Amino acid sequence: MNSLIDKLKPKENKFFLLLQKMGDLIITASDLMLECVKIATHDEAVSYYKKIKELEHQADAVQGEIFEELNNTFITPFDREDINNLSSKMDDIMDLMTSCSKRIMLYNPKRIPENASNLAVLLRESVGFLNLAIDELDSFKKRPEKIKEYCVQMNVLEKKADDVYEDFLIVLFSEEKDAIEVIKLKDILHELERATDACEAVGKIIKTVIIKYS
Amino acid sequence: MNSLIDKLKPKENKFFLLLQKMGDLIITASDLMLECVKIATHDEAVSYYKKIKELEHQADAVQGEIFEELNNTFITPFDREDINNLSSKMDDIMDLMTSCSKRIMLYNPKRIPENASNLAVLLRESVGFLNLAIDELDSFKKRPEKIKEYCVQMNVLEKKADDVYEDFLIVLFSEEKDAIEVIKLKDILHELERATDACEAVGKIIKTVIIKYS
Amino acid sequence: MNSLIDKLKPKENKFFLLLQKMGDLIITASDLMLECVKIATHDEAVSYYKKIKELEHQADAVQGEIFEELNNTFITPFDREDINNLSSKMDDIMDLMTSCSKRIMLYNPKRIPENASNLAVLLRESVGFLNLAIDELDSFKKRPEKIKEYCVQMNVLEKKADDVYEDFLIVLFSEEKDAIEVIKLKDILHELERATDACEAVGKIIKTVIIKYS
Repeated sequence: MNSLIDKLKPKENKFFLLLQKMGDLIITASDLMLECVKIATHDEAVSYYKKIKELEHQADAVQGEIFEELNNTFITPFDREDINNLSSKMDDIMDLMTSCSKRIMLYNPKRIPENASNLAVLLRESVGFLNLAIDELDSFKKRPEKIKEYCVQMNVLEKKADDVYEDFLIVLFSEEKDAIEVIKLKDILHELERATDACEAVGKIIKTVIIKYS
Repeated sequence: MNSLIDKLKPKENKFFLLLQKMGDLIITASDLMLECVKIATHDEAVSYYKKIKELEHQADAVQGEIFEELNNTFITPFDREDINNLSSKMDDIMDLMTSCSKRIMLYNPKRIPENASNLAVLLRESVGFLNLAIDELDSFKKRPEKIKEYCVQMNVLEKKADDVYEDFLIVLFSEEKDAIEVIKLKDILHELERATDACEAVGKIIKTVIIKYS
Repeated sequence: MNSLIDKLKPKENKFFLLLQKMGDLIITASDLMLECVKIATHDEAVSYYKKIKELEHQADAVQGEIFEELNNTFITPFDREDINNLSSKMDDIMDLMTSCSKRIMLYNPKRIPENASNLAVLLRESVGFLNLAIDELDSFKKRPEKIKEYCVQMNVLEKKADDVYEDFLIVLFSEEKDAIEVIKLKDILHELERATDACEAVGKIIKTVIIKYS
């Protein structure tokens, strides 16, 4: 009975629900990232990596569902390619968080600098605006102002993340004399910075969609 | 007479033939990569680099032909931009293999780790699925299942390559104490890992094409 | 009165003017880059960074104007997404120059190698062709040959920049024994090399536009 109702639901709805599901997984992962950059022991690093990896698997499954829906649906709320690009780029955010937590586990750096926490906070904020933007996707034709503002915010946060990453590099080069440690920390924080880039890239895809339908 | 027959050939055919030609060059280059990561002397490194560079030149020429055809053909089998993106991304795979072999030659690392061979094997497999997918491009509207499966395989192999690259990084950081050597090997293997990313990106473009015509 | 005339101007014109404005800012910044890689003191580094950063802000403003115009204009000279991609990728060139000059200021390397100047010269040439291509955008349908040639030149210059970057890496690895200094210089020159990649990417977008309308 439930499955019948499901099939009768307008398909339009289905895509928004799947993108929101993916957005929720990204939020949960970015909440874990906030703690993951503050771990004290290697066991904790392993535990956070496993949790985030599990969320990545779930996001992969949702992306697969979106792809199948795109192939089985005649009318989509906006261009098929845009929905596909959107879910693909959201998946990139997830992959970069997994990669960051994996590097923390694998490299086992002497200490994780405070700037990593700042980056994780900016990423969490950007992911928040991403989800707000996704929520607006079904009504942006009526009121494009809100969703545009969320895209602006993702851009602003990406620039802030660039600044934090560069501040981190100055301190790193002036204080850390062990080159191997420099390589490790640069790599770990770079994944976080790239995750905010990926959020901004989602914002750019959304802007393209807005432009197409304006 | 041959040239007349050529012009009368359906253009549709022409694009598939050019993409297949490019695919064949990529296969040949990835076969060379399998050996290039196992070289014992600097002379061998130079020789493999030259061979792969020559294949890159040939691929550039094919890409140029595709671009000219796109400008001179009214009806294309699918969207012009997609054919262009496809050949452009295939060219990226070639460039990354050239760059990897060039770095092996230039950096002259003390030894190339076993993981480089594993990456080259995964790349060769991915490139194999890429060519199978290209072969299906002219019939995916009738039977999309095969081509979809090849795209899935390129995605699976990209994730495996990520894992191999990350395993390599753990061993590198735990065993290699010479930071310069760390930078060199990280750079060399990164190009191979990026080449599998580029294969997956081709898979993504193909998926977009499938979605458009589903 | 001026504003009324402005509104009556054909919109087609407006987009070209904005893209040209952005191109001019990029030219000015790349002229500064030529000097920035030759600085002798840290104060000079700070001064160049500030000037280039200011140009980046101006380019951001122009990009914002383009986005707003795209949302308020019914008929555009070519696809909205392409205009948006074009301005977005031009903005990337600007960001990479800012990032390069910022790294020179922040890392304060012992010396900047001669190859950085060579890269800056190639970037300046590529940016020159980029601007010529932008100037042709309003007439490429009539005479596509010129604009195609400019795109070819951006591709040629990107390959030259790759070679210079790789030559720099050989010398760096053979002469610089301080791993931290290796990381710093590799990072600084990489941003310049990536800026020529971004020029080539603009060329690719233009080629896609040509293909669409051929």
